[in-house]
Amino acid sequence: MEKLRLLSLYSDFRKDLDYIEKELERAVDSESPIIRQASLHLLRAGGKRIRPIFVILASKFGTYSLEDVSKVAVSLELVHMASLVHDDVIDDSDMRRGLQTVKARWDNRIAMYTGDYIFSRALSSIGEIEVPAVHRLLSRTMLEICKGEIMQIEQQRKFDQSIRDYLRRIKRKTALLLSSSCELGALVSNASPSIVRKMSRFGYYAGMSYQIIDDILDITSTDEELGKPAGSDLLNGHLTLPVLYIKDDVEFRPFMERSFDKTLSHSDREEMLTYIRKSGAIEKAQAVSDLYLQKALKEIEGLPNSDARKAFFQIARFIGKRDF
Amino acid sequence: MEKLRLLSLYSDFRKDLDYIEKELERAVDSESPIIRQASLHLLRAGGKRIRPIFVILASKFGTYSLEDVSKVAVSLELVHMASLVHDDVIDDSDMRRGLQTVKARWDNRIAMYTGDYIFSRALSSIGEIEVPAVHRLLSRTMLEICKGEIMQIEQQRKFDQSIRDYLRRIKRKTALLLSSSCELGALVSNASPSIVRKMSRFGYYAGMSYQIIDDILDITSTDEELGKPAGSDLLNGHLTLPVLYIKDDVEFRPFMERSFDKTLSHSDREEMLTYIRKSGAIEKAQAVSDLYLQKALKEIEGLPNSDARKAFFQIARFIGKRDF
Repeated sequence: MEKLRLLSLYSDFRKDLDYIEKELERAVDSESPIIRQASLHLLRAGGKRIRPIFVILASKFGTYSLEDVSKVAVSLELVHMASLVHDDVIDDSDMRRGLQTVKARWDNRIAMYTGDYIFSRALSSIGEIEVPAVHRLLSRTMLEICKGEIMQIEQQRKFDQSIRDYLRRIKRKTALLLSSSCELGALVSNASPSIVRKMSRFGYYAGMSYQIIDDILDITSTDEELGKPAGSDLLNGHLTLPVLYIKDDVEFRPFMERSFDKTLSHSDREEMLTYIRKSGAIEKAQAVSDLYLQKALKEIEGLPNSDARKAFFQIARFIGKRDF
Repeated sequence: MEKLRLLSLYSDFRKDLDYIEKELERAVDSESPIIRQASLHLLRAGGKRIRPIFVILASKFGTYSLEDVSKVAVSLELVHMASLVHDDVIDDSDMRRGLQTVKARWDNRIAMYTGDYIFSRALSSIGEIEVPAVHRLLSRTMLEICKGEIMQIEQQRKFDQSIRDYLRRIKRKTALLLSSSCELGALVSNASPSIVRKMSRFGYYAGMSYQIIDDILDITSTDEELGKPAGSDLLNGHLTLPVLYIKDDVEFRPFMERSFDKTLSHSDREEMLTYIRKSGAIEKAQAVSDLYLQKALKEIEGLPNSDARKAFFQIARFIGKRDF
């Protein structure tokens, strides 16, 4: 149901998304069979292409050029893909979106260099845009993402962390790249400075809301829906917002400890997830996500009325209600 | 002795190199203690700063601006550093230049993200240069380096490879970044297209010569001189030029097989290295290095007579004779 709604939402600019998809395939093509296979494997595993969609929509508020939009969109989606490949090494993850990860199908070394390669491809794609502010913003964003990744390692398997730590982490993990997608889309189409700022904030708030929902779904969905084990975040030692609300609950604590030790049986995992679902923590986390969503909506209220503005509203509402 | 000569060579532009060194320290500074420590650890482990020196010298053939030169030089040295951090993960190396590697002192995950972080810093440094050709060249170079890294994994521990495979590998591993250092130096100072091309070729030939010597030194030096075990290349399953000349020698073959299996004792390793040293393979490899050096020298012969040209000659001669 939600999936269908998302598809109809995309249909308005399906042609441009298809073009970007082809450019993405072209970008990861390589004479090295391993790189080509690993990158295509990753690309075909899908994803919602939210970054390209944000670039397209934000560009509609300036002078839209599909060619420039595509270079920026390809670059951002590749940065995202590269960081996923490296994340799977860190988390030792074997499955993502129902498919084997690069590190599982090949090995950690191939995953590291495939990530590096895709990262470099991202740069060569955006390298063709001759707007210095674009490059400055992208490299600043990438620096922050890396800092976030190191923070995530530092805070992994640590009970002693605050909601503020979590929010800072997801800002770097997700919100900044979505914020940059919107901001770069506006920049590359020469939108006014005020629109560029609104876009940047919209992407940031939408990204925060989106990631909180993602972290909720990791607890409320089934393994099949997720394409990986439910509760993966906890099994990997990452504390997410719902868990932070109940981490000091004496009945819950042993689950968490055994999660971190990897001594949790399959049925214990089920029990743990049920415990979180019934604790009220999901609702609290959802309320925080909703707050960010309201802030995102407020930013687009101030945009000129247009199809793109309408689409942004639809996407924002989708983010708030999505179940995948 | 050689070290002293190199120092006097550097002294002509010591002030600019010192400035670049400070900018390098500034570039890797970070509020994350782990990133800061790991990057500074790496930076202070030293290195000859050949890439910055090449950028400085090449820039002397155009309109020299220390500020621009520094941004390019910092960026290239950081790309080099990032690739070393990732290489140490691949090779599972614990020592480099007599110091613990990042992956040994922290772990593989920290090493991966520290590499990513330094890589991003490299981009933000060069991002301030508003010459599109500069960005295109750098991203193309980084793509080729990644391809080379994947090739190196594919060919690791494989007996069946040719000298051509080796030359292709060291081109990507070393020569391209040195070629780009010279080319970017010339580009950023607006040197004439003919000088830009000469610089690019000089850096490439000098880089090929340099890497072959590096691979020879891995066999002819002591553990102390290298700051890591002599013969590391073979122990890591990488066939270098001298080894390729004797890999089919029936007496040598068992050494190589046990090297790859990691079943070689300390005294066997000594014996293996002595065997290579006495086989004539070193001299053959040296001759190939000399050939590349001649080509490099030929490129600078055509440059306008200047202190920078003189310095390039000195460096080229140093590369041919260095013993560290």
